[in-house]
Amino acid sequence: MNGARSLVRTLIDSGVEICFTNPGTSEIHFVAALDAEPRMKAILGLFEGVVTGAADGYARMAGKPACTLLHLGPGLGNGLANLHNARRARVPVVNIVGDHATYHRQLDAPLTSDIKSIASGVSSWIRVSQDARTVAKDGAEAVAASYGPPGQVATLILPADTAWDGPAEPAPPVAPRRPAAPDDATVEDVARTLRDAGEAGALLMNGSALSEQGLLLAGQVAASTGARLLCDTFVTRMARGAGRVNPGRVPYLGEQALELLRGTTRLVTVGTKAPVSFFAYPGKPNQLTPTGCSVLPLAEPSEDGVAALAALVEALDATTAVPVTVPDGRPGLPTGELTPKSLAQAVAHLLPENAIVMNEAGTAGTPVPGFTAAAAPHDWLDLTGGAIGQGMPAASGAAVACPNRKVLSLQADGSAMYTVQALWTQAREELDVTTVIFSNRRYAILEMEYSRVGAGDPSAATRSLFELSRPDLDWVGLAKSMGVEGVRATTAEELTRGLERGFGETGPFLVEAVLGE
Amino acid sequence: MNGARSLVRTLIDSGVEICFTNPGTSEIHFVAALDAEPRMKAILGLFEGVVTGAADGYARMAGKPACTLLHLGPGLGNGLANLHNARRARVPVVNIVGDHATYHRQLDAPLTSDIKSIASGVSSWIRVSQDARTVAKDGAEAVAASYGPPGQVATLILPADTAWDGPAEPAPPVAPRRPAAPDDATVEDVARTLRDAGEAGALLMNGSALSEQGLLLAGQVAASTGARLLCDTFVTRMARGAGRVNPGRVPYLGEQALELLRGTTRLVTVGTKAPVSFFAYPGKPNQLTPTGCSVLPLAEPSEDGVAALAALVEALDATTAVPVTVPDGRPGLPTGELTPKSLAQAVAHLLPENAIVMNEAGTAGTPVPGFTAAAAPHDWLDLTGGAIGQGMPAASGAAVACPNRKVLSLQADGSAMYTVQALWTQAREELDVTTVIFSNRRYAILEMEYSRVGAGDPSAATRSLFELSRPDLDWVGLAKSMGVEGVRATTAEELTRGLERGFGETGPFLVEAVLGE
Repeated sequence: MNGARSLVRTLIDSGVEICFTNPGTSEIHFVAALDAEPRMKAILGLFEGVVTGAADGYARMAGKPACTLLHLGPGLGNGLANLHNARRARVPVVNIVGDHATYHRQLDAPLTSDIKSIASGVSSWIRVSQDARTVAKDGAEAVAASYGPPGQVATLILPADTAWDGPAEPAPPVAPRRPAAPDDATVEDVARTLRDAGEAGALLMNGSALSEQGLLLAGQVAASTGARLLCDTFVTRMARGAGRVNPGRVPYLGEQALELLRGTTRLVTVGTKAPVSFFAYPGKPNQLTPTGCSVLPLAEPSEDGVAALAALVEALDATTAVPVTVPDGRPGLPTGELTPKSLAQAVAHLLPENAIVMNEAGTAGTPVPGFTAAAAPHDWLDLTGGAIGQGMPAASGAAVACPNRKVLSLQADGSAMYTVQALWTQAREELDVTTVIFSNRRYAILEMEYSRVGAGDPSAATRSLFELSRPDLDWVGLAKSMGVEGVRATTAEELTRGLERGFGETGPFLVEAVLGE
Repeated sequence: MNGARSLVRTLIDSGVEICFTNPGTSEIHFVAALDAEPRMKAILGLFEGVVTGAADGYARMAGKPACTLLHLGPGLGNGLANLHNARRARVPVVNIVGDHATYHRQLDAPLTSDIKSIASGVSSWIRVSQDARTVAKDGAEAVAASYGPPGQVATLILPADTAWDGPAEPAPPVAPRRPAAPDDATVEDVARTLRDAGEAGALLMNGSALSEQGLLLAGQVAASTGARLLCDTFVTRMARGAGRVNPGRVPYLGEQALELLRGTTRLVTVGTKAPVSFFAYPGKPNQLTPTGCSVLPLAEPSEDGVAALAALVEALDATTAVPVTVPDGRPGLPTGELTPKSLAQAVAHLLPENAIVMNEAGTAGTPVPGFTAAAAPHDWLDLTGGAIGQGMPAASGAAVACPNRKVLSLQADGSAMYTVQALWTQAREELDVTTVIFSNRRYAILEMEYSRVGAGDPSAATRSLFELSRPDLDWVGLAKSMGVEGVRATTAEELTRGLERGFGETGPFLVEAVLGE
């Protein structure tokens, strides 16, 4: 077999079952190798941002990597933003980038570029394969590296001749690398600190600590010590809804975050680090740990958050403590005007049990987390790295990972346009995704930031940079043009009917929620 | 004034009149500075690939840079593919990338990434501004660097505090740097060589040599020496049509290129380098200069191709030689089936005088150059770097640069999906662009490459990776959803009516050409 065949065989033997791709000529031998290996499913995205975002969403739900297959530097560039988000989500991605044959690069043909430099912005592990005989081993090491821990983007650059040359042999398969628990001294130290701090203590969590099990353990810590439970502003994946433990979320704006954290003197981190503001602003603090508050890591992102919390519960002698969980109490159906609040209320009422919610709803989505806290149990995924255009691709990948669960894609209109091509992949793969477009026809966050700058009222020309109007986007038309049915909702009742239809059918559906102020 | 104001003032004073952008919070002070400077027009793209591709198209037609304004590493990543194409086109682009405040980067907030590494894949000049007091000077140097020669992508990374801090002063404006002519000895050497070689000599051209004037001079060289005139497979900009000199184009496939070049013993390059194949293939040559043929540069890409050809004409004593130009002979209108050939014929018949043709028509567009050789005089722009998704953005930028000329955007469907958001910018800015989608519902080049690999018949699963069907894309619907009117054509007559409508009206219009085999 040639190098490509040996690589594909090794990937699938190591549990990499899905290849999200938009291939080109330099990847054609890899594609031919896929043809010979029906155990690996290849899924086409019509743009690489769809490919990499899907790999992120898949990894969040499958707990293991998919591979991508991208076309040289430009294909990688197109996928870079969502690889950035995957990096911030700390999920495993095996990112395969085809390149010119090793001997062709020196000729500087038109598609030649410095792939390594481009990849280094998002990849914790990079290798350029040198020989068909070692490419399978490179692939195995990429899979191993992607597991971290924590999970990370491992980029394997695959010159075309390392794919087409041979003979080559598959490499031994790789088993997932699991993170270790923190040591006893750390756990004991945290237990003592939290006991002493009482209600001035807090746990700040991300990663596996936000699984149902992790949150129940955290709930026992809280019940036993009085500590508050908090999660990062943007979480990789969190178990939410009725019956689950619901941590407070650190607000996006620094001043609100500081307000929330006021009075905390001991901040214990689990799977994350001390909070910082998303952006810096003139004269405002960007480190959000309150003055005089000490930060203690219970578990680094590289460690096992659930095991750490279990050990902490033991150390606190809290194994019988009863965590506070969210009572069943979803709101009723809204009527009348369609606003961010009534939209959130309808979602909270109708959300199917065990749904996956991918949230890139932006400013108009602000009410959704509050309203859905007591909705049917669900998993929640956030835009982790701030690079917009993640939502619809990641929702697609989550649906590939969990074909028997409904995916709800909550999507700001401005961000949706970044990777709108994802709708086509949802149609082709018949993915069970209901998309709600939060159509406020503006980059509302930029309007807010402009006013925060204190630059006064912008001119009409400048305002137009924040507006998605003139012309308005027709989201139902966009979806239909890519094979996804949809409806437009301008009242709460229309939104309800749209959601009921999306949730009641299997396959992709889109609701354009035309929002008033 | 603050750093941002000083920078915008310096850019506009240096002739940078257009800012293509999709800004974010870290760029908000730059946006506020734009608000205070009405001489610079800001144009919104709903995705950064539109922004950078428009800057490329603008530069090709305006002969000077626009600036971009991009949002940190992910915004740059999204724009990277079209910056790659601009780099290969050797056109000036001032690429401005906002970053976190200098003191914020160390906190590794979610949007932090290694912008310099990402930029280095496409930028010949990179600077990270350090201080508001020097940011205007950085901007002036970016403009100067963008001119090269040859033109290049100059990336200025702008930490937010260097924009908001002050007081700052504008820097002295920058004048375009013009390329130099080659020295006399080089010209004399080439003249002698071409005289000796006769019909075994050839000129291979790109850059300014392909302007109307450059080609007329090249035509005098050919008339005087017998040398063949050739241009690169993909040209930055070329004057074409009736009355112009029409060089032969080096074919995309290496074996065909070698066939074309057979018998050439002296290859003189003007604004380009010796030909190489786009990709390497097992066992096939990737350097396309025939065995025994010597390559002589008359003008490097950094030199003035027109001046070089003028000097060569002088040295050959050929100032009165009469170049062979294309007689007026556009084909008649086609009837019947809509095929790549009848499409090309209709375009050739109807093309308005002085139109700008942006060609990213892909495999289905192969007949267009031949049919349009004797069309009304026009400028022709190619996809220069092979990174698909350039066409519709670059057509938009060309229309911004030349508001009084019709732009014809010849666009393969697969490539069009990469930056489909460009249609919205065409609608908002009322750009005079007629787009023809070559809708063959497949990545036809990959089908061809797969068969060239010798991997046999692909399975249905693999074939589906090359197909844009299931579901089909509705291009008229996509365009309408973004504010661009359009029609679908399934016969040559319908295509003619569509083109007549697009060419007859002002503003954006789209024709989906549904192609048979």
